[in-house]
This record gives sequence, C-alpha cells and structure tokens, in this order.
Amino acid sequence: MMKIPAKVLLIPTHDSLPGGFRWSAVKAGIKASGNPDLALAVAPGGANAAVMFTSNQVVAAPITVGREHIAASGGMVRAVLVNSGNANCATGEPGLAACRTSCNAAAAALGCTPQQILPSSTGVIGVPLPAEKLTNALPAALAALGSDAEAAVAFARGIMTTDTRMKTALAMVEMDGKPVRIFGACKGAGMIGPQLGPPHATMLVYLFSDIASCPEALRAALAPAVEASFNSITIDGDTSTNDTVLLLASGTSGVELNEHSFAAFQSALDAVCASLAHQIVDDGEGVTHVVELSVTGARTSAEARQVARAIAHSPLCKTAWSSGDPNWGRILAAAGYSGVQFDPATVSIHIGPYPVFERGVRSPRFDEAATHRHMQQREYTIHFDLGHGTASSRFLTCDLTVEYVHINADYST
Amino acid sequence: MMKIPAKVLLIPTHDSLPGGFRWSAVKAGIKASGNPDLALAVAPGGANAAVMFTSNQVVAAPITVGREHIAASGGMVRAVLVNSGNANCATGEPGLAACRTSCNAAAAALGCTPQQILPSSTGVIGVPLPAEKLTNALPAALAALGSDAEAAVAFARGIMTTDTRMKTALAMVEMDGKPVRIFGACKGAGMIGPQLGPPHATMLVYLFSDIASCPEALRAALAPAVEASFNSITIDGDTSTNDTVLLLASGTSGVELNEHSFAAFQSALDAVCASLAHQIVDDGEGVTHVVELSVTGARTSAEARQVARAIAHSPLCKTAWSSGDPNWGRILAAAGYSGVQFDPATVSIHIGPYPVFERGVRSPRFDEAATHRHMQQREYTIHFDLGHGTASSRFLTCDLTVEYVHINADYST
Repeated sequence: MMKIPAKVLLIPTHDSLPGGFRWSAVKAGIKASGNPDLALAVAPGGANAAVMFTSNQVVAAPITVGREHIAASGGMVRAVLVNSGNANCATGEPGLAACRTSCNAAAAALGCTPQQILPSSTGVIGVPLPAEKLTNALPAALAALGSDAEAAVAFARGIMTTDTRMKTALAMVEMDGKPVRIFGACKGAGMIGPQLGPPHATMLVYLFSDIASCPEALRAALAPAVEASFNSITIDGDTSTNDTVLLLASGTSGVELNEHSFAAFQSALDAVCASLAHQIVDDGEGVTHVVELSVTGARTSAEARQVARAIAHSPLCKTAWSSGDPNWGRILAAAGYSGVQFDPATVSIHIGPYPVFERGVRSPRFDEAATHRHMQQREYTIHFDLGHGTASSRFLTCDLTVEYVHINADYST
Repeated sequence: MMKIPAKVLLIPTHDSLPGGFRWSAVKAGIKASGNPDLALAVAPGGANAAVMFTSNQVVAAPITVGREHIAASGGMVRAVLVNSGNANCATGEPGLAACRTSCNAAAAALGCTPQQILPSSTGVIGVPLPAEKLTNALPAALAALGSDAEAAVAFARGIMTTDTRMKTALAMVEMDGKPVRIFGACKGAGMIGPQLGPPHATMLVYLFSDIASCPEALRAALAPAVEASFNSITIDGDTSTNDTVLLLASGTSGVELNEHSFAAFQSALDAVCASLAHQIVDDGEGVTHVVELSVTGARTSAEARQVARAIAHSPLCKTAWSSGDPNWGRILAAAGYSGVQFDPATVSIHIGPYPVFERGVRSPRFDEAATHRHMQQREYTIHFDLGHGTASSRFLTCDLTVEYVHINADYST
C-alpha cells in the first residue's frame, strides 16, 4: 500500500521534484512586458501522458495540434512547449502553421517526432503568433533546461499571463519504501470557468510525476481529479478556448500505477489538483474573497452541481460577497433559476457557521452583524442544503469587484 | 383590417390611454425613501387577463397567490395591487397571509372577489411584508384613482425601485374607424434576466388595452410578444423570483380580438413590449452601453438564441463593451462555450458596420480605431453569423461597469 500524502507542498524544493523531467523558461519577445514567455518542459526519456482540453467549440491552434499529436504518438510526450502572451486562437491556417513550425523545431532539437511535442499557448486571442520568435528562442530554452527547483520555478513563472503569482503544488507518496512524486504548475486568473472534456479556460495545468503508467491508467486517475478540482471552480464563468490539463508520467520512480497503488496515487493527484485549483481562484482577477459553495441534500450530484454553478456565476451574489453582504435572497434566487426543481420550504442556507435561511423563511437565528463579520474573512463557506436527497457537490468561486471590471475593461486606443 | 401603428408613444397623454381603466399610487410607508410604494390599477367593469410569471423555482408570495387568483377567476381581473420596496419573497406563510390580507381588503373596497385582485411585489427579498401598511393606505389609493395621463404616470412611478426613470409605452391601432389602445408600464433595472413561463426578473410589466378579448386570445398574443421582448433581454442574467407580465383587456373600444384583428393587435402589442424591454435595458444598473446581439446563420432559432445568451451574459464581453474594446476574441470564445456546435471557419462577426472576424480569422478589413469609435455610441449592434443555416435571434444586453458593482455591492452595517 502506498502512503497517502500528509500534505501538499506549495513551493518546489529539489527533494520534492519528480525524476525524469527538465524545465526552463526564456524571453522570446512575445510579451510586451519583456517577461519570460517561452516555457519548456522536457522528459528526456519520454513520458506517458493523459490530457484534457477545453470543451469550447472554438479552440486555439495548439489544442487542434495537441489533439493530433497525442493521438498519433499514442500518448507519448517528449516535451511541452508553452508560449504566453499570445493564445494563437482564431488565427486560422497561419496559426496552425506557426504551431507546427515551432513543434517541428523542438522535435528536431530533441531528436524525437513532432507528434511527441505538446504545444500550449495563452494570451491575447486573434493575433498571429510569430513562430520565428519561438524557434529563435528555442536554443536558449534548451540550454537553460534543469531538473532543480530553480528550473521548475522558471517554468511555472514562464507560463503566467495576468497571474499575480506563481502557482505550484507538490505531493509525495511512498510505495514499498520508494517515493513517487507529483509536481504541478498552472496559470490562470481570468477567462476561468473550465469545462474540460475527456480529451479542457485559459487555464494551463501541467502535472509531472515519476510514477510508471500507461496512458489509460493516467486518464483514469486524471478525469476524477479534474472533475473535483479544475472543473469545480469559476472566476468569471468564461470558458477559455485554450484550457489544457496535462499529466505526464516519466516512470523513473520504479513504481507502477496499478490496482495496488492507484488509490494512493489518486489521492496525491487529487491533493495537488485541489491546491492548484484553489490557487487559481485565490489569484483571480480582482478577487478579494474566495467562497466555497457546498450544496448538499440534492437528488443527484449533477443537480447539486447545477445549483452550485448558478450561485457561483450570479453577478448579484458575487457583488454582494465583495462587500460581505449576507444577502441570502440573491443566493436563493440564483438556485431558483438554476433549472433544478426544489421546494424552498425544505431549503436551509448557512454562511460559515451562521444560519441565514431555514425551511422557507429567514432564519429566526439570523444574526446579520455576526454573519457580515464572518464574511470579512478572505475565505469562507456557504452551505446550501436542498433538503431533498443525499447527493452533494462542492464548487469554488469568488467575488466580483470593481477591480475585475477595471482589469477587463482596460483598453487604450 | 386594422392599421398597424406608425409608432410607439413613450409618455401617456389623455388621448393615448385605453378606456376602462383607472390608476393611482400613494405612499404606504414601505420604501425608506418615502416615495410612493403602493400602486393600484382598477378596471371598474372588469378586464380579461393573460399573465406570465417567472420561471424561477423560488417564487414570491404574490406569484403564488396570483396564480391561484387567475385560475380561480377564469382570467377575470378587477384590480392590480402593486407594492414596491418589499418583494414579499421567501417570507413563508406570513408572507402569503400578508398578500391575501391586502387582496381581501382591496376586494372588499371594490366589491369584487379576492380572486379578481392580482397582487405584485418588488423590492428586498426575505423581509416580512407589513400588510397593515398596505391596507391602511388603500382608501387613499382608491380615492386617488383617475383615468387621465397624470394617474397613469403616477401608477408607472409607483412601481419603481432602483429604476432611475419611469418606463411607459403606448400604441394605437384602428379598426373600422374605431381606435384600440395599448398602454404599458413597467419597472426593472437589476436582477434582470427574465425567463417567463406560460403562466416570468423583478421585472413587472402591466399592459392595459381597451380591446375586447377572451383570456385565451390574449394569451395567444402575449406569449410571442414576450418571447421577442422581455425574454430576449438581460442586464445581469439573474432571473428574479417576482417577474410578472400582465395583459388586461377592458373591451371598451368595442373592437373584438379575432382572426381579422389579431395581426394588427399583435403588431401593436409587440411594439409596446419591444419599447418597454428596451427601456429596461437602457435603464439597467450602471449601464453605459446597450448592445443588440443579432445572431444569424444558425440551424435553429433556439441555437441562435443560445449563442446570443452566452455572449449577452459573458462578463468578459460585457466589461470590454464598457470601454469600447473591439475584443472579438471574447465574443467568439463565449459563443464557443454556449453549447452550440459550429465551425469557427464559417463564422463572421461585425460590430456595427465594421467587420472584425471573417471565416476563422481576424478580418483583413479589421479597423480597430474605427470600430472602437463606433463603440463609443450609447447603443450599437453586434452581428454574429454562424454561417450554418438560416435561423436567427435578436437579444438586447448591456455593458458591465464599475457602477453596477458599486450599486450591488453597496452594503452598510
């Protein structure tokens, strides 16, 4: 039996990183800021992969190319080539060509097939991607590759766009004395409402593990981990055209993902994904409060989720949370238009430990001042019990602030 | 044949008002502001009615009572009793009792059955409604009833909450020399994302006509008028618990709604509803730009509508519109997650007359500066052609501004 990780580490240290991977990031000149914008992760011995892409009907060139590559390579990945500052989306054939050109250049340098390169892009939509900037910067990115904490941090920083901070998480499990490690790095602060499909904002998530596994077993572990984490968060509900979650397994731990190790690995993977998903919401554009929605007492978990999503996306709820207004009427109304049938007479709502609505009416124990004080915390839970069944769902969302509007309305001619 | 109305009048005049109705509004002391908060409309000879209520699963007491009354009276309405300042929603049995008490008092004073009174409430959710304030103010409301323009305006003002201006519209059609009139009054500025069901924000809409009609024919005219107007607008997408659209027909024109008059009456009703719906969005909380979404080239009108709704509710699109940012990538991405399948290669997007996206890529004719200038207008159209079919849909939405957040985050302990 593998030991379940006691905790998730947030910042990479040399001991915490999985074997079999090398990382780097350099400045290719795509970002106007001049910050690093080409991030590279290489598995010198190759890695088996499971990947989930956005369910948006409009997908960026790297999603189209990435799907082709994963299918053609049978889930074998040698390198991940990420540029930030340009989403390479809605760029037509030239966008696809730019993506293929950069994959070809990486493949040639690494001595693998182009299909073993997984490309990702994040940034502005609709602007042609200058492939030559990527190919010109590639030698420097290859030269900078390292397996230490600095290299891992450089990769995590190189994928950032409007993020205000790096997002990483690490977990370790042991099997028969052998450590298995998972290192995750991700980015995303706006256009976050991920709905990842079986092969999913612009949220980019890269999960590196040294477990040994076939792609099928990796997919079996990744799908539930994503459902409970990245598919259960929202910032603005705008599902991106570029969302990608990639899990890579280098095998260098010598531990095989099988029926004996699966539960422990799943638990570690879940913990890393949960931490990264939380970090994304916490760093959301303009966010001042992170709100966990716990919907219980539903007939099905799908219905619980539907209620949670409606509340999570309601502009009236989100603005009320920005000022700590215990306006449970807006929460109840949002649940009411979720499409799920329920009787308000069986509903109870708590904000943190404070009852606000019980069985059809404002709670007789409603303490507006205390509830308002509780809502001054950076993070708290709203518990919505439908009183109909036993199914439940958890969803992580945030407030809607003036700063969010400023960030996204910022436009200079 | 009835003549189709040349235009819609916005402000009531004595000549433009339908016969068979009397209106008033008084101060009952529910609004903290001390503004009129009890509005009354009476049809002394009775009126046949068609009504559509919110599709929210959580409904206010007046919706529950109103449904009962319309069913019991066979669609016969003697009076509409509206209070603003309190939604009487999520108030349980006491809320239902308060609603019934005020209906009973109005019925006693008017000499009709309580079932012939249609109640409406709008305002804060979850606060008990003081029925005695309504019943105490009722004699004054009855004494103030009038059939002139001042009375109609008083009614329209009495139903306002966060509205910054009165919303009224009037149209007239003639049949065999006889005028048939429609007067509409409505309120609504926030929690606007109406989805009215067959018997729909808090949006309250009252339509008074002197045509003679059975309730069934009124319902046949009201449903399509509402679908193309109130069900095709959004401010924040938050569907209210109290939405009501009521169409009353007094019959005093002597013109019957039948197969000969239906098209012309429908046209006049459509025009009044379209004007009122536009006024609601134009007066939306914090709104600085009204955007008409015209989605064409869809397989079905339902799919066109689904695409329009996704764009209409996207926080990223709405914030971009607040600064006149011609960010078509956000528009395309929102359509992409609408759930409708399409190929971006067949899509074209225009902002006003300016092409921004054509067949998979940024338009070669994209003129960012000119498009940005066009978006400085208070109101403009975004045309999204899916390129797949012949069905279409129109939807009216607005920008998301710092002022919207301020209005809805405003909370003082």
